[in-house]
Amino acid sequence: MPDPGFASSDDEFGFIARHLRPLASGHSGAFDLTDDAALLEPTAGMQLVLAKDALVEGVHFLQHDSAEHVAQKALRVNLSDMAAMGATPRGYLLALMRPKRLPPEWLGRFSHGLAQDQAAFGVTLLGGDTVVTPGVLTLSITILGEVPRGQTLRRSGARTNDDIYVSGTLGGAALGLEVLQGRLSPPIAASEFLIKRYRLPEPRIELGEALRGVAHAAIDISDGLLADLEHVLNASGKGAEIYTHRIPMSQAAAPHRGALDAALAGGDDYELLFTADPEQRPAIQAISEQRSLPLTIIGQITEGSELKIRDADGRPFSTNRRGWRHF
Amino acid sequence: MPDPGFASSDDEFGFIARHLRPLASGHSGAFDLTDDAALLEPTAGMQLVLAKDALVEGVHFLQHDSAEHVAQKALRVNLSDMAAMGATPRGYLLALMRPKRLPPEWLGRFSHGLAQDQAAFGVTLLGGDTVVTPGVLTLSITILGEVPRGQTLRRSGARTNDDIYVSGTLGGAALGLEVLQGRLSPPIAASEFLIKRYRLPEPRIELGEALRGVAHAAIDISDGLLADLEHVLNASGKGAEIYTHRIPMSQAAAPHRGALDAALAGGDDYELLFTADPEQRPAIQAISEQRSLPLTIIGQITEGSELKIRDADGRPFSTNRRGWRHF
Repeated sequence: MPDPGFASSDDEFGFIARHLRPLASGHSGAFDLTDDAALLEPTAGMQLVLAKDALVEGVHFLQHDSAEHVAQKALRVNLSDMAAMGATPRGYLLALMRPKRLPPEWLGRFSHGLAQDQAAFGVTLLGGDTVVTPGVLTLSITILGEVPRGQTLRRSGARTNDDIYVSGTLGGAALGLEVLQGRLSPPIAASEFLIKRYRLPEPRIELGEALRGVAHAAIDISDGLLADLEHVLNASGKGAEIYTHRIPMSQAAAPHRGALDAALAGGDDYELLFTADPEQRPAIQAISEQRSLPLTIIGQITEGSELKIRDADGRPFSTNRRGWRHF
Repeated sequence: MPDPGFASSDDEFGFIARHLRPLASGHSGAFDLTDDAALLEPTAGMQLVLAKDALVEGVHFLQHDSAEHVAQKALRVNLSDMAAMGATPRGYLLALMRPKRLPPEWLGRFSHGLAQDQAAFGVTLLGGDTVVTPGVLTLSITILGEVPRGQTLRRSGARTNDDIYVSGTLGGAALGLEVLQGRLSPPIAASEFLIKRYRLPEPRIELGEALRGVAHAAIDISDGLLADLEHVLNASGKGAEIYTHRIPMSQAAAPHRGALDAALAGGDDYELLFTADPEQRPAIQAISEQRSLPLTIIGQITEGSELKIRDADGRPFSTNRRGWRHF
């Protein structure tokens, strides 16, 4: 039932006024969060792109993750969906289901985390809802972006003989989670790097924008390389051949026994996987250099529907771990 | 942590394919829920209106409410936000955080409830996310609608001497909750009516559309008449005088001792409160008759910022219950 007390209602309003309203000041259509809904109009010639990803304590983040990191991870996994579509993010709506035990400082730090990422990624809070839940801390964000009409990057566009690229490095986030769980104890610098990969993914917004008209298909790697590549293959009606020794891994991740498994199936890296005609290699190399972001060819799209994984000697590589799945 | 089992991932995909995908077939930009995001373009000359309301088990619905009712209430409270803005709803995104214990039949009935209301209100599922939560069942819906440019109904438009209207009847939902909690035992027909008011609010979409260019300000009554009227007064910088004996109550609600309290502060009725120039009385009466929906003047907007409540004899009426609040 709703809280019948006026005091707790006032708290709710106070929280919104103090912490959330300033986050909405960048967009007149958010009406300072004082109305029932927000107004938005896409720029002429642009289509609106919408995605919604929820995060649950104990599933997508840990109870002791900081409020700032929880806020930023929630926003960034949604920003990553925009990157995967080649969209420029504009704003977001937030539903915050918070347990009563959360202290007011937590809410302040949570809002501070959002404010920092709003500045970093050029988005504004447009509206949303806060409720006290008897369950665990849960966040749902709906993100809105725009893309020039017809230029959306889709999962379904891969063509035979396309190169398959991944950005950055893979496996670090899954290993970072193992560090947080006490199952892996690398040197301190590597620990910090891996934990950051887990807690604060780097949505590849600028890369997604640069790949409009260049890539045939794209997806962000949230479930794991194999699972997400399979999404592309299924949507495109194609197969693929990839090489394990070409999969880019960070220096912090590579030495660990589970690094390849983490790279193939670990998920949570939020790098982009995309396919492009081999003719685009010079253009893609230029994009990589401009952004100082490695873009690595890990294999090719093939006819059929099979995903073949080979090692450095061309031998078939078997794995039964295909990563997490959601929609 | 994510569920490492492949089986549970398959379940998730199977659920989406079987139950959710058909709900998205009405909009090509939903890509059958197979991509990272949905594409949407507002109709020419229309602005996009966005709202997001979350529902939590034990807070906004009861554990034993049926799956269909949970689905429909979640959709309808969001549709009600569209009505309050004078917007025509087009589609929605859904985040479903479900406890493991929910049986597959529940998900089927949940989707069935959504399908029925999609048909009733002309909306389509555009995308979203499903996750298994260790907490309670939680739903977050983001709804999208459109409104001709500049014709949005706002909370802030009330003018001095405007009539204050409410649609339908008030207090029924709060009394229905009391019936469900065993605190009220009216005759069976009244029970059913009141419970339905709580479980299945009727979003006043057509009324909202008809009030474009007619009403000065509007809001939906979710927190309670007094709380929501205060939102309008605060946003408009006005006061008001309302009369308790004019507040419309259903025959099922009126006989109960707590009926007036429920009507003033109960919330959950999801009727519209709106203000309009007295010159609009004939137009508003016509709207009421066309829709067989009572539209009742309960008072007037005044200068200042005070909300005065009077009884039938003009005496000030005091209440310390101001209803629930959220943003």
